[in-house]
Amino acid sequence: MSQPKYIHALDIPVPVRAELDAGTQKYFALCDEKLGMVPNVLASYSFNAAKLRAFSDMYSELMLGESGLTKLEREMIAVAVSSVNNCFYCLTAHGAAVRELSGDPILGELMVMNYRAAELSPKQRAMLDFAYKLTKSPNEIEESDRQALRDAGWRDHDIWDISAAASFFNMSNRMASAIDMMPNEAYHSQAR
Amino acid sequence: MSQPKYIHALDIPVPVRAELDAGTQKYFALCDEKLGMVPNVLASYSFNAAKLRAFSDMYSELMLGESGLTKLEREMIAVAVSSVNNCFYCLTAHGAAVRELSGDPILGELMVMNYRAAELSPKQRAMLDFAYKLTKSPNEIEESDRQALRDAGWRDHDIWDISAAASFFNMSNRMASAIDMMPNEAYHSQAR
Amino acid sequence: MSQPKYIHALDIPVPVRAELDAGTQKYFALCDEKLGMVPNVLASYSFNAAKLRAFSDMYSELMLGESGLTKLEREMIAVAVSSVNNCFYCLTAHGAAVRELSGDPILGELMVMNYRAAELSPKQRAMLDFAYKLTKSPNEIEESDRQALRDAGWRDHDIWDISAAASFFNMSNRMASAIDMMPNEAYHSQAR
Amino acid sequence: MSQPKYIHALDIPVPVRAELDAGTQKYFALCDEKLGMVPNVLASYSFNAAKLRAFSDMYSELMLGESGLTKLEREMIAVAVSSVNNCFYCLTAHGAAVRELSGDPILGELMVMNYRAAELSPKQRAMLDFAYKLTKSPNEIEESDRQALRDAGWRDHDIWDISAAASFFNMSNRMASAIDMMPNEAYHSQAR
Amino acid sequence: MSQPKYIHALDIPVPVRAELDAGTQKYFALCDEKLGMVPNVLASYSFNAAKLRAFSDMYSELMLGESGLTKLEREMIAVAVSSVNNCFYCLTAHGAAVRELSGDPILGELMVMNYRAAELSPKQRAMLDFAYKLTKSPNEIEESDRQALRDAGWRDHDIWDISAAASFFNMSNRMASAIDMMPNEAYHSQAR
Amino acid sequence: MSQPKYIHALDIPVPVRAELDAGTQKYFALCDEKLGMVPNVLASYSFNAAKLRAFSDMYSELMLGESGLTKLEREMIAVAVSSVNNCFYCLTAHGAAVRELSGDPILGELMVMNYRAAELSPKQRAMLDFAYKLTKSPNEIEESDRQALRDAGWRDHDIWDISAAASFFNMSNRMASAIDMMPNEAYHSQAR
Repeated sequence: MSQPKYIHALDIPVPVRAELDAGTQKYFALCDEKLGMVPNVLASYSFNAAKLRAFSDMYSELMLGESGLTKLEREMIAVAVSSVNNCFYCLTAHGAAVRELSGDPILGELMVMNYRAAELSPKQRAMLDFAYKLTKSPNEIEESDRQALRDAGWRDHDIWDISAAASFFNMSNRMASAIDMMPNEAYHSQAR
Repeated sequence: MSQPKYIHALDIPVPVRAELDAGTQKYFALCDEKLGMVPNVLASYSFNAAKLRAFSDMYSELMLGESGLTKLEREMIAVAVSSVNNCFYCLTAHGAAVRELSGDPILGELMVMNYRAAELSPKQRAMLDFAYKLTKSPNEIEESDRQALRDAGWRDHDIWDISAAASFFNMSNRMASAIDMMPNEAYHSQAR
Repeated sequence: MSQPKYIHALDIPVPVRAELDAGTQKYFALCDEKLGMVPNVLASYSFNAAKLRAFSDMYSELMLGESGLTKLEREMIAVAVSSVNNCFYCLTAHGAAVRELSGDPILGELMVMNYRAAELSPKQRAMLDFAYKLTKSPNEIEESDRQALRDAGWRDHDIWDISAAASFFNMSNRMASAIDMMPNEAYHSQAR
Repeated sequence: MSQPKYIHALDIPVPVRAELDAGTQKYFALCDEKLGMVPNVLASYSFNAAKLRAFSDMYSELMLGESGLTKLEREMIAVAVSSVNNCFYCLTAHGAAVRELSGDPILGELMVMNYRAAELSPKQRAMLDFAYKLTKSPNEIEESDRQALRDAGWRDHDIWDISAAASFFNMSNRMASAIDMMPNEAYHSQAR
Repeated sequence: MSQPKYIHALDIPVPVRAELDAGTQKYFALCDEKLGMVPNVLASYSFNAAKLRAFSDMYSELMLGESGLTKLEREMIAVAVSSVNNCFYCLTAHGAAVRELSGDPILGELMVMNYRAAELSPKQRAMLDFAYKLTKSPNEIEESDRQALRDAGWRDHDIWDISAAASFFNMSNRMASAIDMMPNEAYHSQAR
Repeated sequence: MSQPKYIHALDIPVPVRAELDAGTQKYFALCDEKLGMVPNVLASYSFNAAKLRAFSDMYSELMLGESGLTKLEREMIAVAVSSVNNCFYCLTAHGAAVRELSGDPILGELMVMNYRAAELSPKQRAMLDFAYKLTKSPNEIEESDRQALRDAGWRDHDIWDISAAASFFNMSNRMASAIDMMPNEAYHSQAR
C-alpha cells in the first residue's frame, strides 16, 4: 500500500546510471560501496551535474567534515529539525543514520518523534533546543540563545556548525517536501 | 543513552503486579498473552483501579469495538494525530500497531512522519485530513469538513468513529506528554 | 436566530428515552433529578450503550471522583482548556458549572474569556498555566513545567489529575466540535 | 474571588467625576442616563481629555453612525474579533451588547465562544469569516476575500465598515489587554 | 510593474479635492505644506468627513501629542508592529518617518525587517518587545510584561502610550490590508 | 544608532584579505569588480575555504545558473521567503538585488513588505504563493500545490528551481539569524 510511488513527483526523469558523466558515476559507485545504495536525493539531483555537485559538496562538508560536533550530533540535529518540518525523506534517511551511528535504535525514534523525551546531556539538549527554535521561529533568535549554547559548553565554532546543520536541513526538508521526494526503502530496516 | 529513564516522571509508583486487585491482574495476564507485555500506559494507570478501568474501557470500545473503520484505520488515525502532537509514547506504541496490522512497516513510518507522503485511497486520505484539522484547529471545523468525509464514502456513524478516535488521541497524547510517559522498549522492534 | 439547530450535526438520531436500556434510563433519570436535564452530550452518546458508558465512566471518575483538586478547580480547567479550543458546547456547560460551584458568576466568565484576567491564587494560576500549555503545545511540556506545579504547592497525584482533566477536555472539545454538538439551552441562564 | 481588582493595572488614577472638565462630565452624565453606568474604558481614558475624545469619537462614529451594517452586526463583529484575542473587557461589554440588541442571550454566548456554531445567514457568516481572517492573518487578505463579501450581498461601503469595525477591536482588545482593563461588573448580568 | 494600481481596492471613489468640505480642504492644504503630499490614507477616508476626522484626531493625538515617548519612538513602534502584520502601506509610510526623524536610513530598514537586529538601548528594546508580544499574542500579556517596561525605565504613563501606539497600528494595519490601501509613491525615496 | 555592530555575533574573526588563499582572493576581487564590495556573507564564511566554496557554489548555481526563471524572479523568491523569516541580512541584500534587476525600487519594497500587495502576473504570483507556503508549512505541500504552478504556466524543471530557491533561502535566512549576520551598509542605498 505504501510502496514509494516514485523517486519524486516532478516530470524530471532520473537518468540511467550508464548515461551519467564519469565523475557522477564514480561518486555513485562510492555510495554503493559505502552505503549499499545511491540515496534517492542524489539520484534526484543527477539530472544536472552542477546541481548535484553543489548539493553533495555542501552536504559532505557539513555532515562529514571536521567539526566540534560528532557526526552523530549532526545527524541528531538533522532529525530533530526534520521532525518539526515533518519531512518524510529526511526523517527516514537521517533517522537511520542516528540509529547506525549511535548503535541505539531508540535514540533514532526519539529524534524522529520528540527529542524532548530523550535523556540527553545538557550540552546536547541545548544544541537541539537551539536547532528547534531556529527552525520554528528564526526571527526570534537572540544573543541569549547563542549564550545558552556557550553556557552549555559549546565554543563559537561549534555554534556555527550547529547553526549550519540546522539551517541546511531547513533547506533540504523543504526541497524534499516540495517535490515529494521518496527515500530508498532500505533505510527503514537499517540498524533497527 | 536513550534508555527509558522511567515509566513516567511523576512520583506515583507503579504497583507490583502481585498487589493489584484480581480484576487488574487478570486483565494484565490477558495483555501478556495477547501483546507479550503490559503496555506502560496501563501500568501507569494501575495505581488506581477506577482510573485504569475508565481508560481501558474507553480505549477498548474505541479501538477494538465494532466500527465502519478497520482496526488499522483507527490505528492510522492514532498515529497521524500523535504526529501533530509529537507524542513519543503514542507514536511508538501505535506506530508498531500500524506496522503489525498492515504488514507494511513503511506505512507505520509514513503515519509517524507525514501521512501526506503516503499513497492512500482518497477515502483514507479524507479520514486523515479530517483528523489532522480536528487536531490542529478544532475551532475551525465546519459542515464542509464533515461533508468532505461523506463525499469520500464515509457514513455518518463512521464520522462519529473517526472523530472519536482522533479526539481520544488528543487526550492520550497530552496525558503521556504531561507525565513524560515512556513506551515499552519492545514496541520499537516490532513488525519491522 | 441562534436557537440550537439540533443536538448534533450527524445523521445518528438520538433515541427516544423509552427505548433506551434500563441502565441508561436509570442514569438519565438520575441526571434529571440532579441536574434538571439530561446533558446533550449524554443524549448524543445514548445511541450506543457501550460508548455512553465509557464516556460517562471516565467523566465521572475524573470530575467527581476523589482528588486533591476541588470540583471547582477541575471545572476551571475544563473551561480554560475549552477556551483555547473555542468549544461552544463545553464552554457553555462547564462555564455554568464554574458559576454554580463557585457562586461567582464572574469567575465563570473569566474562565471562558481569559483566565489570565482572573485574580487567582498562585497555586490555581499555575494549574491553569499548565493546562493552557498542555493544550496549546503538548510537545513542549518539560520537567520544568511539572516542577512549576510542585513549586506552587501541588503534589504529584494532583499533577496527574490536572493533566487528566486538561487532557480529557482536549478530547471532549474536539468530539463536540467534530459533530457540532449543541448544549442544552438551560445552561445559559444557570447561576447568573 | 474574581471581583475586579481595579479598573486597570497602571498607576494612572481615574479622576474623580467632579474634577473632570465640563464636556466630559456632560458626556458621562449621558452615559449614566443611556447605559446606567460610565463604561470603565471611558473612565480609564478620562485622565486625558484629548485621548478620551479621540477614542469616543471614533467609537461613536464606528458603532453608532450610519452604516449598511446594523448596530447588532457591528457588535457581532466586536465580539467575534475579541474572541480571537481573548479580551476579557471587550467580550464582557460587547457580549452584553449583542444580548441586548438581539434580545437573544444565546447569540451573545455564541459570539463569545465560537461564531461558527451559530446559525447565521450566509451574509452574516461571510462578514464574520472576513473579520476572523483579518484578525488572525491580516497579511493573507486578498481580493478573493473582499469578493466573498460582495458575493454574499455586501456593498463596498459595507466592506469598509466591516473592515473598520474588525480593525477597531483589534486595537481596543490590545489596549485593554495591555493595561489589564476590567469591565464594569454590571455587564455580566445584563440581558441574560 | 509594481506601480500602485489604485489608492485602495474598494469601489469608494476618492473625492476630488475641490469638492471636499472647507475643513478637510484646509487640513489637506496643511498636509501638502508639511509633508509635501496628502497621505493616501487620508485621501481614502475623505469620502466621509466624520470618519476622516475620527481617524486623524486619534492619529494626531497619539503620534504627535505630548508623551514620554519621542516621536521617533512612536514611529519605531508603528513600524515594528506593521512588520509583524506585513502591512505594505504602514511599513512604507512609517518606515519613511523613522528614516526622516532619526536621520538614520538603516534604522528604518531595521524596523521594517526585524527590530531584533538593531542595536538599541535596553529601554527601547523593551518597548519594542512589548509591542511585538502585544501584537502577536495579546491574550498572553501579563503583569510581568508591564513590569519589564518599568524595569527598563518607562513610567506608567509611558506604558499607556506604548500600548496605545502598538494597538493603533494593529487597527491601522488591518484597515489598510482589508482594503489593499496603497501608499503614496513618494515615501519610498524619502530620507534614504 | 543603528550602525552594524559587527559582521556577525560569533567569535570567529573574519580573516584579513591578504591572508586568504589565492582562490578566495581572486573570488573576492571579482566580487569587488562586479558588486563593488565583498558581501558580508562571503566574508563571514571565509574563515574556512571549504565552507565558503560550498556556499558560494550552491549560491551561484542557484541564482546565476541557467533556469526557466529569470534572475529577477529568483531574487523575488529570495526576498519573499526572507520576509516570512524576517531575515535582516537577506532582506537587505536581496531587496537591493530586486531593485537593481527590475529597475523598480517599489518592487523591492513590495517583496520585503508583502508580496501580496504587488501587481504581478498570475504566473509570478503563483510562484510566490508556492514559495510562501513552502516556507510557512512545508509539511502541508501537496500535489495540488505543484499543479497550481503547472496551471500557471511553469514547467516541471521550473518547479524544481522555484523549490530550490525557496529552500535555499530558508537555509540562508536561518544561518544569518543564527549568527546575527549584518549586511554591508552599501546595499541600503543601492538602486533606490
